[in-house]
Amino acid sequence: MDILKERILREASVINSDVLKLDALLNHQVDPELTMEMGKEFARRFAEKSITKVITVESSGIPVAFATALALNVPLVFARRKKTLIADQDALTERVPSFTKGIVTDIMVSKQFLRPEDHVLFIDDIIANGDAARGLIKIIERSGAKLAGLGIVVEKSFQAGAGTIREQGIVVESLVKVASLEGGIIRFE
Amino acid sequence: MDILKERILREASVINSDVLKLDALLNHQVDPELTMEMGKEFARRFAEKSITKVITVESSGIPVAFATALALNVPLVFARRKKTLIADQDALTERVPSFTKGIVTDIMVSKQFLRPEDHVLFIDDIIANGDAARGLIKIIERSGAKLAGLGIVVEKSFQAGAGTIREQGIVVESLVKVASLEGGIIRFE
Repeated sequence: MDILKERILREASVINSDVLKLDALLNHQVDPELTMEMGKEFARRFAEKSITKVITVESSGIPVAFATALALNVPLVFARRKKTLIADQDALTERVPSFTKGIVTDIMVSKQFLRPEDHVLFIDDIIANGDAARGLIKIIERSGAKLAGLGIVVEKSFQAGAGTIREQGIVVESLVKVASLEGGIIRFE
Repeated sequence: MDILKERILREASVINSDVLKLDALLNHQVDPELTMEMGKEFARRFAEKSITKVITVESSGIPVAFATALALNVPLVFARRKKTLIADQDALTERVPSFTKGIVTDIMVSKQFLRPEDHVLFIDDIIANGDAARGLIKIIERSGAKLAGLGIVVEKSFQAGAGTIREQGIVVESLVKVASLEGGIIRFE
């Protein structure tokens, strides 16, 4: 997605050789029009997969996952990072470390919203080490739903996450792949 | 919004006289079409206010805030609950208690995305005691931006939040007002 590459070059900043800051367009401020274009692109790439539900993990994947669900005309489910006192008893939970937050959290999806008959498209904003993604994939597997694939806005392909998920035989579609941040320079694949 | 009242009566459940569970349509699973209708309704109610930015607090307000920002054709900013290691040094922060989560968190907005020239519309899914809302209102005030008003999907008018904010002279527009949950029955105002 060339427009997204241009926006990243213009608005992102490299914190260090591992961390790309996308606050201006992805995970703090969001451009709704650009996000809708991303959603339509994911909908196009998974058009043949009879998707019944889009899923993401709160929170920064929610806008693009919402845009994708709107384009596909299916419900969106966002997995909760479990701290709430009113969580469903009837929930699927996985414990995952967070690369950017430096903490461990439990992610949770109510069984009510993830059914064995669902074809699920998992959308997220960034994939680095893929810990949260692997956690949600385990939850989807345990629910009995079929995982149609992952749609990622920015894949940091120099980190292991997307690679290890593809090795499981899961389709991962990334709108942009960042090959390196060495020397403070963003290099796309 | 009659369609929203119907959906709440059909899909929400009353946990106790204080807590209404809206997992099926607002804060775990989301209906994109219904959410877009909510966003258009907020855009209509604040059409004369020259809104330059929509703001919310992560995470369950993000879908409806995104829909509103899309309808108004302005950027969305979502305040982060601060735990990330890559938070901006140049940020406005307020500490707030969370009614549903039973914990205290810091909410954070980067000064870069909230400017004195902004006219901000603050959108959220539910208002109960309004602690998080008051925290974000303080952040908006400190930024120098003008707060055009609050748009709330479900106001629990038997709790103090929206009332105390209106007493500050701030416009609060709610799509639905729940007057009581006594006896397990949802009564609208």
